[in-house]
Amino acid sequence: MTPARLYNYFRSSTSYRVRAALRFKKVEYEYLPVHIRKGGQDSAEYRAMNPQRLVPTLVLGNAPPLAQSLAIIEYLEERFPEPPLLPADPLERAKVRSIAYMIAMDTHPLNNLRVLSYLRDNLDADELAIATWFRHWVAETFEPLETILRKTSGRYCVGDAVTLADLCVVAQVASNTRFDVPMAPYPTISRIYAACMELPEFAETAPGRQPDAE
Amino acid sequence: MTPARLYNYFRSSTSYRVRAALRFKKVEYEYLPVHIRKGGQDSAEYRAMNPQRLVPTLVLGNAPPLAQSLAIIEYLEERFPEPPLLPADPLERAKVRSIAYMIAMDTHPLNNLRVLSYLRDNLDADELAIATWFRHWVAETFEPLETILRKTSGRYCVGDAVTLADLCVVAQVASNTRFDVPMAPYPTISRIYAACMELPEFAETAPGRQPDAE
Repeated sequence: MTPARLYNYFRSSTSYRVRAALRFKKVEYEYLPVHIRKGGQDSAEYRAMNPQRLVPTLVLGNAPPLAQSLAIIEYLEERFPEPPLLPADPLERAKVRSIAYMIAMDTHPLNNLRVLSYLRDNLDADELAIATWFRHWVAETFEPLETILRKTSGRYCVGDAVTLADLCVVAQVASNTRFDVPMAPYPTISRIYAACMELPEFAETAPGRQPDAE
Repeated sequence: MTPARLYNYFRSSTSYRVRAALRFKKVEYEYLPVHIRKGGQDSAEYRAMNPQRLVPTLVLGNAPPLAQSLAIIEYLEERFPEPPLLPADPLERAKVRSIAYMIAMDTHPLNNLRVLSYLRDNLDADELAIATWFRHWVAETFEPLETILRKTSGRYCVGDAVTLADLCVVAQVASNTRFDVPMAPYPTISRIYAACMELPEFAETAPGRQPDAE
């Protein structure tokens, strides 16, 4: 297979999810940084691949570019089933996806760069108001998530195998450090994050270890 | 099978996605309204099923309650494969999920009730600022979506079969009417929406046709 190319940004949590998934699936890729704070996503070249101008974009061989982190991960799961990032049983899969989407739909989209910029530029939000916003939406998800994980978790979010849920939770916890989100109220989430970070698949794909890290 | 129970709210676009999916899959269900404008989601009974206090929640027979609209739909797809709401080919599935997530991750979460309430209550946003916010995030997605759909669509978002992508697009367009989002710039999205609304699966599950419609 032609080598894969991953257009991404070290600190983007959607990029981190996909980097970790590629590492679990043992798919080698070329790391292509897109500097989203300097408008790298607005170039004609990038827009042709990703009209939404968001990272990441994955190009696998001659296939059309893939966008949207969770669509990419579901595709990787279907193309490269081992090791699985979703359980086999439909109810367990629903449990995993439900946890993943609590982060991917109800938390991250509210706290990404373009939204924080809008708050600052269009709603006169100052640094404190932005940090309060960020922490509010994390807490809105992490409180019920802590309750849910107390029931579903083993070593990881759902039982003892790493799943899509862990990819989303780890990337969110890593992102939280930018706004000093207190993690003490979430012992289960903290324990799972620590367990994940012992794995090279998460440690080596973390934001601080990427070539474009600042 | 014990009949299904759907806890939902007529105007919630995540609820609409699931109602349409259940109708396509010919799963009969009991409609249980949760009045999210009056705090129905905060009751102890509802929180026990859905700690996140969001709609919808689907209870199928004796299985544990399912949360998160797209996790529910993926589960329905796995349990009741006919008619399919995802294509068979992995690349086509990625295309469908990618379009669905443009709405489900990058648009709807920014514009749902709890976020608009936060803007009003915590950032002093007035009605105009809230409407501007809503329209901004729709446009941020609908502009690239229009470009993408020009390539992928047949009668529906991806080819000539209804998919998960259509469920998300239809529910978003229906939701847009609350803020008079201009649809003229999006002829392809408008055409697909009109084609979908000719189907009883979308028409009969639309917000205005539900028992709790106001």
